[in-house]
Amino acid sequence: MNKQSMTDTIVSAKAARGLTWEAIAKDIDVSPVWLASACLGMNSAPAAIAKKVTDHLSLDDDVTAALVAFPTKVWDQAVPTDPLIYRLYEVVGVYGDTLKEVIQEKFGDGIMSAIDFSMEVDKIEDPKGDRVLLTLNGKFLPYKTW
Amino acid sequence: MNKQSMTDTIVSAKAARGLTWEAIAKDIDVSPVWLASACLGMNSAPAAIAKKVTDHLSLDDDVTAALVAFPTKVWDQAVPTDPLIYRLYEVVGVYGDTLKEVIQEKFGDGIMSAIDFSMEVDKIEDPKGDRVLLTLNGKFLPYKTW
Amino acid sequence: MNKQSMTDTIVSAKAARGLTWEAIAKDIDVSPVWLASACLGMNSAPAAIAKKVTDHLSLDDDVTAALVAFPTKVWDQAVPTDPLIYRLYEVVGVYGDTLKEVIQEKFGDGIMSAIDFSMEVDKIEDPKGDRVLLTLNGKFLPYKTW
Amino acid sequence: MNKQSMTDTIVSAKAARGLTWEAIAKDIDVSPVWLASACLGMNSAPAAIAKKVTDHLSLDDDVTAALVAFPTKVWDQAVPTDPLIYRLYEVVGVYGDTLKEVIQEKFGDGIMSAIDFSMEVDKIEDPKGDRVLLTLNGKFLPYKTW
Amino acid sequence: MNKQSMTDTIVSAKAARGLTWEAIAKDIDVSPVWLASACLGMNSAPAAIAKKVTDHLSLDDDVTAALVAFPTKVWDQAVPTDPLIYRLYEVVGVYGDTLKEVIQEKFGDGIMSAIDFSMEVDKIEDPKGDRVLLTLNGKFLPYKTW
Amino acid sequence: MNKQSMTDTIVSAKAARGLTWEAIAKDIDVSPVWLASACLGMNSAPAAIAKKVTDHLSLDDDVTAALVAFPTKVWDQAVPTDPLIYRLYEVVGVYGDTLKEVIQEKFGDGIMSAIDFSMEVDKIEDPKGDRVLLTLNGKFLPYKTW
Amino acid sequence: MNKQSMTDTIVSAKAARGLTWEAIAKDIDVSPVWLASACLGMNSAPAAIAKKVTDHLSLDDDVTAALVAFPTKVWDQAVPTDPLIYRLYEVVGVYGDTLKEVIQEKFGDGIMSAIDFSMEVDKIEDPKGDRVLLTLNGKFLPYKTW
Amino acid sequence: MNKQSMTDTIVSAKAARGLTWEAIAKDIDVSPVWLASACLGMNSAPAAIAKKVTDHLSLDDDVTAALVAFPTKVWDQAVPTDPLIYRLYEVVGVYGDTLKEVIQEKFGDGIMSAIDFSMEVDKIEDPKGDRVLLTLNGKFLPYKTW
Amino acid sequence: MNKQSMTDTIVSAKAARGLTWEAIAKDIDVSPVWLASACLGMNSAPAAIAKKVTDHLSLDDDVTAALVAFPTKVWDQAVPTDPLIYRLYEVVGVYGDTLKEVIQEKFGDGIMSAIDFSMEVDKIEDPKGDRVLLTLNGKFLPYKTW
Amino acid sequence: MNKQSMTDTIVSAKAARGLTWEAIAKDIDVSPVWLASACLGMNSAPAAIAKKVTDHLSLDDDVTAALVAFPTKVWDQAVPTDPLIYRLYEVVGVYGDTLKEVIQEKFGDGIMSAIDFSMEVDKIEDPKGDRVLLTLNGKFLPYKTW
Repeated sequence: MNKQSMTDTIVSAKAARGLTWEAIAKDIDVSPVWLASACLGMNSAPAAIAKKVTDHLSLDDDVTAALVAFPTKVWDQAVPTDPLIYRLYEVVGVYGDTLKEVIQEKFGDGIMSAIDFSMEVDKIEDPKGDRVLLTLNGKFLPYKTW
Repeated sequence: MNKQSMTDTIVSAKAARGLTWEAIAKDIDVSPVWLASACLGMNSAPAAIAKKVTDHLSLDDDVTAALVAFPTKVWDQAVPTDPLIYRLYEVVGVYGDTLKEVIQEKFGDGIMSAIDFSMEVDKIEDPKGDRVLLTLNGKFLPYKTW
Repeated sequence: MNKQSMTDTIVSAKAARGLTWEAIAKDIDVSPVWLASACLGMNSAPAAIAKKVTDHLSLDDDVTAALVAFPTKVWDQAVPTDPLIYRLYEVVGVYGDTLKEVIQEKFGDGIMSAIDFSMEVDKIEDPKGDRVLLTLNGKFLPYKTW
Repeated sequence: MNKQSMTDTIVSAKAARGLTWEAIAKDIDVSPVWLASACLGMNSAPAAIAKKVTDHLSLDDDVTAALVAFPTKVWDQAVPTDPLIYRLYEVVGVYGDTLKEVIQEKFGDGIMSAIDFSMEVDKIEDPKGDRVLLTLNGKFLPYKTW
Repeated sequence: MNKQSMTDTIVSAKAARGLTWEAIAKDIDVSPVWLASACLGMNSAPAAIAKKVTDHLSLDDDVTAALVAFPTKVWDQAVPTDPLIYRLYEVVGVYGDTLKEVIQEKFGDGIMSAIDFSMEVDKIEDPKGDRVLLTLNGKFLPYKTW
Repeated sequence: MNKQSMTDTIVSAKAARGLTWEAIAKDIDVSPVWLASACLGMNSAPAAIAKKVTDHLSLDDDVTAALVAFPTKVWDQAVPTDPLIYRLYEVVGVYGDTLKEVIQEKFGDGIMSAIDFSMEVDKIEDPKGDRVLLTLNGKFLPYKTW
Repeated sequence: MNKQSMTDTIVSAKAARGLTWEAIAKDIDVSPVWLASACLGMNSAPAAIAKKVTDHLSLDDDVTAALVAFPTKVWDQAVPTDPLIYRLYEVVGVYGDTLKEVIQEKFGDGIMSAIDFSMEVDKIEDPKGDRVLLTLNGKFLPYKTW
Repeated sequence: MNKQSMTDTIVSAKAARGLTWEAIAKDIDVSPVWLASACLGMNSAPAAIAKKVTDHLSLDDDVTAALVAFPTKVWDQAVPTDPLIYRLYEVVGVYGDTLKEVIQEKFGDGIMSAIDFSMEVDKIEDPKGDRVLLTLNGKFLPYKTW
Repeated sequence: MNKQSMTDTIVSAKAARGLTWEAIAKDIDVSPVWLASACLGMNSAPAAIAKKVTDHLSLDDDVTAALVAFPTKVWDQAVPTDPLIYRLYEVVGVYGDTLKEVIQEKFGDGIMSAIDFSMEVDKIEDPKGDRVLLTLNGKFLPYKTW
Repeated sequence: MNKQSMTDTIVSAKAARGLTWEAIAKDIDVSPVWLASACLGMNSAPAAIAKKVTDHLSLDDDVTAALVAFPTKVWDQAVPTDPLIYRLYEVVGVYGDTLKEVIQEKFGDGIMSAIDFSMEVDKIEDPKGDRVLLTLNGKFLPYKTW
């Protein structure tokens, strides 16, 4: 079973049961962002967690195996068109140089890892309109001299 | 004075005085990320803040005026090459669909605004390697029916 | 049922019944532009409206559910080729900087929202050739300082 | 004098006098959108109007001549990055097929001209946030059989 | 029946009968270029003409309906590769600015319409090698001031 | 003197004398389209014609030499943005396959040369709006077997 | 039968019989390069030759007809990735301007035709490593004045 | 002296002396194609040959040094627009797969080197129109197993 | 059997048997990198080795034949998105000019062959985090004068 | 002093003194690859090493400061054209999926860092043609679950 079929199967089972990523994630004690990324085929799950996911949704072993498989991460649109995703791309375009200035001022020459990395989504209720809070947490990797 | 000359002037003055975005930002009571973005020409500063910035760096009124001017936000590289900025682009590519799933599960159909928006950079010290904490805070904008 | 099948089903049913977007929209009291965008899969419909659409066309519940689902908005052609759509793209290319000047002169630094947004199409009859009147109505979102 | 120098000269003179496109346009009885587009080099002005513009700003005859010259309309970014302009591009991407459906339902097979065309910007004051009203008015051109 | 199937059906029927665009066009009194463009799905045919085409080729009503439908004009190759079509693209690249100079010298600022437009292909016999004569005939549309 | 300087010199001299391509072309007995293309740097002129052009405009020998030089034909925009030139590009996109059908039906497998080629622009006066008549005349080149 | 199926059929029959392009070409007295290009769908074959090819491989008349059909020449990769083909592309990139200099020095302003054109591949045995000899032979087409 | 200035200097000196690549190449006993490529900055010349070139044209030692320098080979247009160079690109597009078939049939799996490579241009006089003969000669490099 | 089916068949058989590229490579005495590249369809295998691979995995002769076939090497993403592969692309972008400097300083003007080439992957265990050691070994090919 | 001027200054001084990267690197005890990358502006040098480099070449303090500055790593060509660099790009295209297979088989799901990374170039003398040996050494970074 490839990652695409795996995602279709999981998303259907989740919808049929009226579940949310948040609820499943809580039950198996992982982050909902990480869980969704694994189920959408953009991360591999350790075997024990994959088992919990498929048990939770009463899915077969081939789905478990597909969750464990190492994904090839591919996206087709160099510039994404969906407005929610484009706004994130726009943030990188508008604030990329700024973040480079501020991060390297604080840490020296190097980068924030996108591999040793986690991310959370929170909701801040606000009478003037609720706000989305995205938190990205990545290890700083300094350039080395050799 | 255009934004590019303004940036060159501010960055030189800042370097000559051995200042950091963090220090200047603290003294004039704004966020260092926002301050850097305005000084790099990606945001306009209210007149009072622009005055504080140029007073702090002993710069002329034309720099103040350039800080106040409304910028045209342009970036040349659809896919950025600098590794620090590319890693952020990669996060959008790898996690874009995931964030859409999780945000819309929490908030309904809509987007996180990149205009009614702020961002912070923090350093988490860690003996296994310090970590960068990026916090993005944007108003949720629901799609409307008409 | 995915959005593509939903669109095919709705468009066929509408053609078979000899209906127009305008007529359906009038009956269920929404705008024909919004209705068409939801039926073409570019907006999600509130459940009550989705129900009215499918009742009107005697379609099944899975079409209703597909209308309610949150869409991922994707377009393939960065530069559209169909002449009607290209002319709109050309307007953005020719008048983009002009609109930025005039809008920001009137409102300050910020943008017109494409989310808190509506649009209408009207026909102005004219003996020298009828005219198309497009009206775009979007909330102004000012940039913020933080 | 080329269009670029013309624009620089006009924009500087306008700023030095503290004028707005709206005010100049009112005095010489044209639309502010059209006036801004001519001054930004995207439309040619009839000689009489060009004269009024340069008289109003006390500019030389070579600026008048440059306003009269027929422009070559060029834009560099197939996908614009400035957020105000991108939102308009996004509207074309999201609603292009929808507008084709609704316009051709009303008018038959054909297009809205971007040449026999005008556009206005209005401000709708609203306590929940002011709104931008863009009105595009283009002649309908039917396809012909031959 | 979509335009692609329509084209396949018409082209097969035409080949089976050993007909040419020229012969069919003559019989139903339209231009062979326009006829071919409608049958290739790039123009819609008025109902009476569509009927004549399908009668001529003994095809079903769904082909007639497909000929009448308004097409979405899409081409995939921004730069065409087929040598016959590339040469036309090359003419636009090499002579585009020249045609702008000569047309606008003759007509003023404006464009040649590609909608209120027709085109013919003729053969000029020549002992040194026959020549192709393409004639493009489009309404001049002047830019307007508003 | 390179082609760009040559074009600037010729265009300025022509404007200063209030001449048109049509008038110059008539005097030196060539087509105005070819003359404009040579003066814009997209064709080389035979020495005798180049001399006539520069004599007509009282220009120096280095302009004559530049007219004679063989040009490298370069255009920057794969998809042109100026509306007059885009419409020609659109004609190639919409009617490319059609022209291939009709030309190859008339001539067999081959192409219309863009080298052994000429082009004319005519004005057809019409009370409903003048029309542009473009005539392209290229040698047919059959593919060969070897 | 379309060109793609034709190619698949011919290539399979050729492999099954253990034939080479060279051997077939010799038997029917054409060049192996031309033969391969026709069988890969990039050239049309005269009816008599097409018949010989399909007789040689004991294939049906629909393959013969497909060989005779005029092809639309399409390639997907603007920059080819296969190393053998990329090296040819690299030669055009590295030596394009050089060839323009040398050819136009020898022949005057004009081009080498890719239509009235043939090509051969030879093998030069060499103890230090065999060499590929490609010979391109195209008619020189001079630009014309009109 | 960089390669661009070197080329400008050599080309001017060559033109001033009325020399051809062919004549210079003959005098210093190299191929005119190779000579032109070195003088256009696409190959480095051995010191002795570089000296002969600059002696022949009475140029300074910095030109000699620039001829000896190792070039970085850059071309800007992925798809070349000049018709002479485009036709070569078209040959690669139309015949690339064909050449792969025929070369690998003759030599096995591998490529023709573009480094251990030479090229010649010859003129074949022909009453029906002279022909250009391009000869490419590259070492065959077989893929290896390891 | 085409290369894609071949790869699917081999990868499934390998997974079903719980084998690694390393283990198979060791048994048939080739490098695991080369073996994987042949099985992924990017290299052709000599017949004897292809036989060993398919014997090892108990696969049919058509798989053996597919392994022997000469591949057309195609990759779709000019800029790869998978993070592991992107990092290699980034190394070429960041260090490309550097490698050119250092290699050509050591070897003279020329290139490292990607055809007469091999590559190995090793693991260096390290308590601070294991390291990947990639070794690329290519024949130096000097440019030649002719 | 920006990185570009710094590189020009260092490269000129190095050439004037007849030095190599290898020799300078040996004297100041760093790798020649790293040294060249820092001098070409693609890495920042620690202050002590920067001082040694500029002392070695008798350059001013502003060069030292420029070497210490954190670079923004930019490359213009998504697909490099210089043959030496293209061959490396080709290796990533041809062997990217292979390396992913082999590395992840050895290390688990993760990547080879391009930041905690070093690279060496060696020359292997060989009577059949010298060989280039590139060694890339990067820390393995496993994906994490959160």
